[in-house]
Amino acid sequence: MSVTAPKGWLASGVRAGTKPSGDLDLALVWSEKPAVVAGAFTTSSVPSAHVMVCRPLVAAGSARGVIVSAGIANAFTGAEGTHDAQRLAALAAQATGTPADEMLNCATGTIGPRIPVDDVAPAVKVAADSLSVEGGTDAARAIMTTDTHPKTAVRTIEIDGTQVTVGGMAKGAGMIAPRMELQGTLLVFLTTDADVGVDALRAVVGGSVEDTFNAITIDGCMSTSDTVLVFANGASGVEASTSEAFADAVREVMAELAYAVVADGEGATRVVRVQVSGAASSEDAKAVAREVANSMLLKAAVWGNDPNMGRIVQAAGQANAKLDPDKLVVSMCGIVLSVGGNETGRRAEAEALMRQGGEVTIGLEMGLGDADAQYLTCDLTPEYVRFNGDYTT
Amino acid sequence: MSVTAPKGWLASGVRAGTKPSGDLDLALVWSEKPAVVAGAFTTSSVPSAHVMVCRPLVAAGSARGVIVSAGIANAFTGAEGTHDAQRLAALAAQATGTPADEMLNCATGTIGPRIPVDDVAPAVKVAADSLSVEGGTDAARAIMTTDTHPKTAVRTIEIDGTQVTVGGMAKGAGMIAPRMELQGTLLVFLTTDADVGVDALRAVVGGSVEDTFNAITIDGCMSTSDTVLVFANGASGVEASTSEAFADAVREVMAELAYAVVADGEGATRVVRVQVSGAASSEDAKAVAREVANSMLLKAAVWGNDPNMGRIVQAAGQANAKLDPDKLVVSMCGIVLSVGGNETGRRAEAEALMRQGGEVTIGLEMGLGDADAQYLTCDLTPEYVRFNGDYTT
Repeated sequence: MSVTAPKGWLASGVRAGTKPSGDLDLALVWSEKPAVVAGAFTTSSVPSAHVMVCRPLVAAGSARGVIVSAGIANAFTGAEGTHDAQRLAALAAQATGTPADEMLNCATGTIGPRIPVDDVAPAVKVAADSLSVEGGTDAARAIMTTDTHPKTAVRTIEIDGTQVTVGGMAKGAGMIAPRMELQGTLLVFLTTDADVGVDALRAVVGGSVEDTFNAITIDGCMSTSDTVLVFANGASGVEASTSEAFADAVREVMAELAYAVVADGEGATRVVRVQVSGAASSEDAKAVAREVANSMLLKAAVWGNDPNMGRIVQAAGQANAKLDPDKLVVSMCGIVLSVGGNETGRRAEAEALMRQGGEVTIGLEMGLGDADAQYLTCDLTPEYVRFNGDYTT
Repeated sequence: MSVTAPKGWLASGVRAGTKPSGDLDLALVWSEKPAVVAGAFTTSSVPSAHVMVCRPLVAAGSARGVIVSAGIANAFTGAEGTHDAQRLAALAAQATGTPADEMLNCATGTIGPRIPVDDVAPAVKVAADSLSVEGGTDAARAIMTTDTHPKTAVRTIEIDGTQVTVGGMAKGAGMIAPRMELQGTLLVFLTTDADVGVDALRAVVGGSVEDTFNAITIDGCMSTSDTVLVFANGASGVEASTSEAFADAVREVMAELAYAVVADGEGATRVVRVQVSGAASSEDAKAVAREVANSMLLKAAVWGNDPNMGRIVQAAGQANAKLDPDKLVVSMCGIVLSVGGNETGRRAEAEALMRQGGEVTIGLEMGLGDADAQYLTCDLTPEYVRFNGDYTT
């Protein structure tokens, strides 16, 4: 059900003909009643048309829905691309009877080409006519590009005896290294029936994005189009602006989707969890975690079941963080491989654990303070290269 | 002849048993007379033992030679590793009758393990006894790790009617993204018989490294051990401290070696030249060139003969440089693919040129100023991943 799990939310996924495969490629998410919205966008200097169009609308704080096109990213398309994004949103607004400035537009797919809005227009009407609770499933499928499966998550909590639900869907399998404001092509849409003030929603989104979507990387490539949108329509009748439980539910849905994105990384066979502790500052912890998570050499070693301590240290060394090699403790799969530059001789144990498959944990205890950070990534495989030698994004 | 092309320089390459393959793994370079030295080192926060030992000696400005061990990097090895590096240098100094503080040590290979100095000691003696002009060839071979062939370059110029020679050798095929001071494991050794003051030599090295070795990347991974050393022994009798021709010769030798390193990148099939022009500042130009050159997605596209304009733009967008998408002109192999976000429809022409093989040029004209920069890299292939899933560095 994904984004239609909360009360008052409908969705659909239809074919507009922009994916060469002919798969579902146009998703519509819509609230039966007015809603507030908060979001986070890519920090790319070449933001896609939808990012430029959405930013001021999301800043205004009210939106009832979003029309999402997958197949063509509408990025690096100049003033005409901006106009295309506005037209698509206007068509969806008209078809659903929504005020024009409360319908958002997102896009993902190939960078460069324009979206053929005239060709897509009939599908927008079909998407509006197909809106339903069951349509959440098709919507999650329609936003996929190189994803191998749809990614959805739902949390239901109880506040003052009433159920409040947070639902979400995400897409993204390559060009994933978001660094969004508050702080890919990662597209994430969350809906809730909680009644939340827009300022409170922004605070919840800001706090959650930083530790979830801003702490994953597949290939170190930040997209022109990364977007996270969280809508709240209040249909549950429960005021949740100050609810910790609500904030936790949003964070959990985001964390589940972020994990799913990494696990479905292009060509990936396993998730790598980089845990940095004992850093002098949070910035240092995050910088070290990010460098390690982005290391092609290390990710290739993980694919090869090689507990390659040297590549962890090499990556940490280029993070521009405060670092004392004599205090650094490096571990893989919970096995300590080196303490301050003295190898522990436990490499074979770590390799045996790696060969069992599943998630690989990399630990760096820096011994300099109490700041920590975590980053999720995936292994780098020959399939990633083969795949991206063929696929045009 | 490489480093022994200039007058008064001898070298050798022998087997010390640290490479599992049993290949040559210990190189010695030595001047028959006193020499000055200038250098540049990795900026990693986890510098290898040899970097820590060499830095103050190179700062002092006098050195007659260097003993290079390939197979074990002696990096992240704590105080004992530092002692190992000092002992190796001392053994080479003793065997050649050189003052202890005028013999340097460098190492490359696996990070983590210590160098078994006692086992290597007899080979140091053999290396000293084998020093010869012809030994330059073996030396270039002995410093290789994952390189597929030795990399050497020589320039001979005439100053005031007398020949002056600059020779060099380099190794490096992975973990290559140097950012050295003045401004990875890249090891580069240049020798010359020019008579150059140490301050002049430092200026020449600093200027040349920035545009050559600091403008290449193979995998975005800066090594713990990157080192460039340039020795001048004055054996030609020609004072060259203020000679432009000499500075040019050093730069040309470095540029030739830098190109050779990229062309021999792990798994690489071709060189990619990223040229940024019209940037608002040199920093911006270099940042954009570096991001594009480090893009896994783009490098995979090059391997697949895909003129993927979108991935160029995406990479440029994450460089934190001043950038106006409406002014950006993107080209590949000399074919303009987009002007300010308007595709030119010449993709097929670029693809045809790519399929001819050879070097691929990527152009970004930013239209914001007159600063430019160039970066060299290589394509990313499934072989890179397979190779690094097996090889432990």
